[in-house]
Amino acid sequence: MVKTIEFVDGKVRMLDQTRLPLEVVYVDCTDYHMVAEGIKKLRIRGAPAIGIAAAMGIALGARDVRAADFDEFMNGLEPVFQTLLATRPTAVNIQWAVERAKKLLSEKRHEPVDRLKELLVEDAKKVLEEDIQINRAIGRWGAQFIRDGDTVITHCNAGSLATGGYGTATGPIRVAVEQGKKIQVYADETRPVLQGCRLTAWELMQDNIPVTLITDNTAGALLRKGEINLAIVGTDRTVANGDVANKIGTYSLAVLCKENGVPFYVAAPLSSIDFSIPSGDLIPIEERGPEEVTHVFGCRIAPEGVRVRNIAFDVTPARYVTGIITEKGVFRPGDLHLLNEKDADLEAVMLKPGE
Amino acid sequence: MVKTIEFVDGKVRMLDQTRLPLEVVYVDCTDYHMVAEGIKKLRIRGAPAIGIAAAMGIALGARDVRAADFDEFMNGLEPVFQTLLATRPTAVNIQWAVERAKKLLSEKRHEPVDRLKELLVEDAKKVLEEDIQINRAIGRWGAQFIRDGDTVITHCNAGSLATGGYGTATGPIRVAVEQGKKIQVYADETRPVLQGCRLTAWELMQDNIPVTLITDNTAGALLRKGEINLAIVGTDRTVANGDVANKIGTYSLAVLCKENGVPFYVAAPLSSIDFSIPSGDLIPIEERGPEEVTHVFGCRIAPEGVRVRNIAFDVTPARYVTGIITEKGVFRPGDLHLLNEKDADLEAVMLKPGE
Repeated sequence: MVKTIEFVDGKVRMLDQTRLPLEVVYVDCTDYHMVAEGIKKLRIRGAPAIGIAAAMGIALGARDVRAADFDEFMNGLEPVFQTLLATRPTAVNIQWAVERAKKLLSEKRHEPVDRLKELLVEDAKKVLEEDIQINRAIGRWGAQFIRDGDTVITHCNAGSLATGGYGTATGPIRVAVEQGKKIQVYADETRPVLQGCRLTAWELMQDNIPVTLITDNTAGALLRKGEINLAIVGTDRTVANGDVANKIGTYSLAVLCKENGVPFYVAAPLSSIDFSIPSGDLIPIEERGPEEVTHVFGCRIAPEGVRVRNIAFDVTPARYVTGIITEKGVFRPGDLHLLNEKDADLEAVMLKPGE
Repeated sequence: MVKTIEFVDGKVRMLDQTRLPLEVVYVDCTDYHMVAEGIKKLRIRGAPAIGIAAAMGIALGARDVRAADFDEFMNGLEPVFQTLLATRPTAVNIQWAVERAKKLLSEKRHEPVDRLKELLVEDAKKVLEEDIQINRAIGRWGAQFIRDGDTVITHCNAGSLATGGYGTATGPIRVAVEQGKKIQVYADETRPVLQGCRLTAWELMQDNIPVTLITDNTAGALLRKGEINLAIVGTDRTVANGDVANKIGTYSLAVLCKENGVPFYVAAPLSSIDFSIPSGDLIPIEERGPEEVTHVFGCRIAPEGVRVRNIAFDVTPARYVTGIITEKGVFRPGDLHLLNEKDADLEAVMLKPGE
């Protein structure tokens, strides 16, 4: 599996995903501004991966803060937090990384500043390692719902490239393959940025997992023909009532699955679940510039001067979601809030195959 | 409005739509093989336009047939018919043009062969003129369903470029604008061949009709937000029970419209209605090569060697269709068969605005 991001020699090395699949190029970020730029320009993308990038960006930013004491250090870190938070509004994982860093620092406030800087680097590396473990747990829980011979559809890229290196939506697919199940994957190309085409198809091919690329328009026809058994997608932010924000087009896929009786699963590490928001309609949705629609790899495809609406994410209401696959188990969207409650009997409400 | 196709100086001149919107280039076809190639390579596309192209191709092919009598002439024409019919299987309009030519020739079988050749040229020109009149009639019937201030979504290109020059799906839009209604159009870009981006957005911009380009993935989110009032699309073949074959992605749009309570209309000249087929599942559906998905304007976007499924059309079951807009009026899909029955009281079953 390809390495998406790592902290090496005091730099954040990220694979420049905008150049895939034509070129495999790594960028070494030497300060937090380069990390923020990498997130904004989609060199790194995918909710878990940008959470990791944010944690590493914070560690990099902290290193360059000159501060004599804790309060001065926290003040100096504020622009780092704000710059990273401002890059992309929809994924909750940057916020999650900032809160995690603040909590760590607050717990260790009596340590010297230089030690705090070291702790942030150590924790950023831990975020990466934990992410891979979480993906594997999601993979094991989710793989129960993939039968031998199944065809799975996925949208965008919630694969190894969107994470520390195993994938959320591709986690169950990878585990199913490891279990010896013969499966097929349809990858929606995912316009406008073509993450499904450029990234998901590419990374599954690297690992010899049978994948077929289709345009986003084709999913409906295949669902209607009965050629797809289940859908698994990722999420940039899933909220307390089980509504799911994910790449634009996810809502359409979910509606088409429901219309054709095909189960629709969302792979969501706890880091992408925002219990502070009650309903999906309150999730901030990023709109991006027209160039992603009017140009492909720098090549103009649309008429000069055409007006464009480029909404990067949509919200899939909980009623279209069969199950949310977390590292703690698979839950009906309506039961998701229990994950945020102490003493909830998760085992009792967990979704099991065949239900 | 731009000229899609015409018969001039004994040649068929077609706009090469594969080069739009970057270049406006015409191709002069000097024999029927060039016409067939133009249809196959999508230089001309859209069910009505390829019906016109087929009629002109037949006239061109007939000119070069050496025959002493009617039977020899018909034998000589057979390869012309077969070549044109083999270009694209889904649109019924090529078949319609072949049947129209055969009927004309059979009626005039006692005329000398040279006169028959002239008659085919005259009739091909008439097909073009009639098409524009039919589009205008579709426009008038359909415009009743567009209110001042409405936002219309369309998929692919069923505009002037898909027809003799006024458009089927864009007919009602053009008439609504002529009636002074202030309307907005969302054009789905329509992957893989991007007819919505390259053709629909371009032709509406030429005529100053407010159009916004979106990816196919974006339609669902806008429908859910309530930002779209109605959908109008074209059709390559609509069959007796009201099932509609049209560009891949049409089915998805129709499902999303239904899910969000948005009416979904199909603009269908009688030439694209095939009463001989009882149900949409019997319509032959063209699958095309992978290059349309893996490359955009010659630029590779997908990993080398990726497997691709490129289904060019899908079938929208009649239950998703609010009304079918023909040159004879607007009908519920379930009433469509009445258009093929003598003495049916069409006026009584016609769909009226507000119903």
